[in-house]
Amino acid sequence: MIPIHPRIEKLQPYVAGSRPEEGVRALKLNQNENRHPLSPKVEAAIRTLSPEMLQEYPDARCDRLREALSSVHGVPVSSILCGNGSSELITLLFRTFLREGDTVAVPDPTFALYANVADIAGVHVRAVPTDANFHMEPLALAAAAPQAVILANPNAPTGVCVTADRIEKLLQTYNGLVVIDEAYIDFAPDGTSVLGLTERYDHLLVLRTFSKAYSLSGARVGFAAGNKRLIDAMLKGRETFSVNGFAQLVAEAAVTDQAHKNEMVGRILSTRERFAASLQAAGWTVWPSTTNFMLVSPPPGSLVAQKVYEGLLARHIYVRYFAAPRLDDKLRISVGTDEDMDLLLDALLRIERGGDAAMNR
Amino acid sequence: MIPIHPRIEKLQPYVAGSRPEEGVRALKLNQNENRHPLSPKVEAAIRTLSPEMLQEYPDARCDRLREALSSVHGVPVSSILCGNGSSELITLLFRTFLREGDTVAVPDPTFALYANVADIAGVHVRAVPTDANFHMEPLALAAAAPQAVILANPNAPTGVCVTADRIEKLLQTYNGLVVIDEAYIDFAPDGTSVLGLTERYDHLLVLRTFSKAYSLSGARVGFAAGNKRLIDAMLKGRETFSVNGFAQLVAEAAVTDQAHKNEMVGRILSTRERFAASLQAAGWTVWPSTTNFMLVSPPPGSLVAQKVYEGLLARHIYVRYFAAPRLDDKLRISVGTDEDMDLLLDALLRIERGGDAAMNR
Repeated sequence: MIPIHPRIEKLQPYVAGSRPEEGVRALKLNQNENRHPLSPKVEAAIRTLSPEMLQEYPDARCDRLREALSSVHGVPVSSILCGNGSSELITLLFRTFLREGDTVAVPDPTFALYANVADIAGVHVRAVPTDANFHMEPLALAAAAPQAVILANPNAPTGVCVTADRIEKLLQTYNGLVVIDEAYIDFAPDGTSVLGLTERYDHLLVLRTFSKAYSLSGARVGFAAGNKRLIDAMLKGRETFSVNGFAQLVAEAAVTDQAHKNEMVGRILSTRERFAASLQAAGWTVWPSTTNFMLVSPPPGSLVAQKVYEGLLARHIYVRYFAAPRLDDKLRISVGTDEDMDLLLDALLRIERGGDAAMNR
Repeated sequence: MIPIHPRIEKLQPYVAGSRPEEGVRALKLNQNENRHPLSPKVEAAIRTLSPEMLQEYPDARCDRLREALSSVHGVPVSSILCGNGSSELITLLFRTFLREGDTVAVPDPTFALYANVADIAGVHVRAVPTDANFHMEPLALAAAAPQAVILANPNAPTGVCVTADRIEKLLQTYNGLVVIDEAYIDFAPDGTSVLGLTERYDHLLVLRTFSKAYSLSGARVGFAAGNKRLIDAMLKGRETFSVNGFAQLVAEAAVTDQAHKNEMVGRILSTRERFAASLQAAGWTVWPSTTNFMLVSPPPGSLVAQKVYEGLLARHIYVRYFAAPRLDDKLRISVGTDEDMDLLLDALLRIERGGDAAMNR
């Protein structure tokens, strides 16, 4: 029998939000996708898809996309590396900058993929508890790991962010690698992103994704920005052709339409506030969010979160439930359109009122 | 300064065939792409691309594609794992089955990516020389490495294949992992593939790609077939969403049109024979090929291979030149359409006749 690597053998696989079965009409609010329309520029790009784009190997370096990102973000092209979603880049940064036995600090709770990738790489994870409001002080991470810290900012699944100057304080005193995962940055207040600091600090790596605000989860594109030395090292060890040609095309089109993205973000934020108010009026607890999802808890004395989750699933409504300390009394709900949230609210109230009867309809 | 992993620091990055600059009309015969039309079923699939396919996370397990592959190849769905080209699967198999310090045997020469991925994983590579005709006896690989052998069959860049029963002999006596990379299998004679043996031998892993015969290099899809235990282990440690939704769709369409693929393969093989005869008539040496590329050498006393390569490049014709022992007197030329090869032949003869004068036009 072929031995399986012991780190893979004992690995807890990363579990993503589940997916409705093919052909089932469902309301998907469990993966923080953006359910608003794509930019007309992306729709136009879809129509220009040529057979050649499928038949020829793609541009390994994603030059056109990197140029578009460079001009929007004011970061040099040589400081940008594109990947198959930010998840590929997370794997790649472990491989490039961390060795077996190193330690990386992350907040607790946070995006589960970091610990999964660390386990595969043989890197220890020190999970530093967030406070009662899920706030994480970046400097507290520094004390926990000599080699690297990873902070999702805003954090998931909590929705909490810290200001850029708190992260800059970390950068000024900590010598390890600072990875800031800005997957949800477009939903956060101004003054949160540290993308503009990548040229100033040579130990800062910022991750971004096209899966959230840009609404391109299915295309699989993300990027890392950092000092050229860091980016060059990642370039050396990466998968050569991981971003397909069509994905590069639609991502480039999306980047060039910031106005559309900003408008959709605006809609999501106002839907979020409206939905939060309705939930609170119904007695739910809503944690403050700076993202396109919300962490919420049913009213005390009503059904527990897991039961509500199951009730929603029975109605083909997908939200996220985490069977983990501090989270197992809550649900994480992606903010869809106003119509989506009205449907959800209606279902939530019916489940609460009707208990199991409603679930078994 | 952030330390870069020593294995990445000293890595020789994998170099893929180069790509014409955007907007330059070029003849690309350097990456073994299939330059014949896509299947009408793939073209129809392109037209069904919906925004939702971009907006929602893809099916992580590629179920529809795996079902299509299962029914075409007679291998259970649970024995198939799809990835972002076979290159992602090569990285994944090292991570899953090999540990730092293990040794893997490969033929010499072969696809350079194996050694690159091994270097990243800290796995030693023993390169076993092929004979004067580039033939590799599978059993000779077994003697060179206790943990694993990787054999591209047909092999690249040599174009040589071994029969399935030679590989079965290896499987019967060798206990390590046997990886057979069948990227070019569709061009090889019957009786070459060992895909049908994956259920019989629990230490056999077969890799396939959509980048060659299926002409979908730009989509980035490949698959591994093997015993369910091997596939499950790879599933645990893989990137969750590495194959984008659109890539899954077109690959599925391509699999369901075997007749089209076979017809295009037939065209390529007849073009290959026709072009080989023309080259031989002009005094070139042509190594026998069982793939969609040919290893060729200019007539003795004429320009050396590297000069011909440069002359072609000056005319925007891309072929592959390897500055490596046993290969640096040869060119590897992908077989395109008859028209492509006529253009190439004309250019080759002009370069030979005109020497540097023609190159400087």
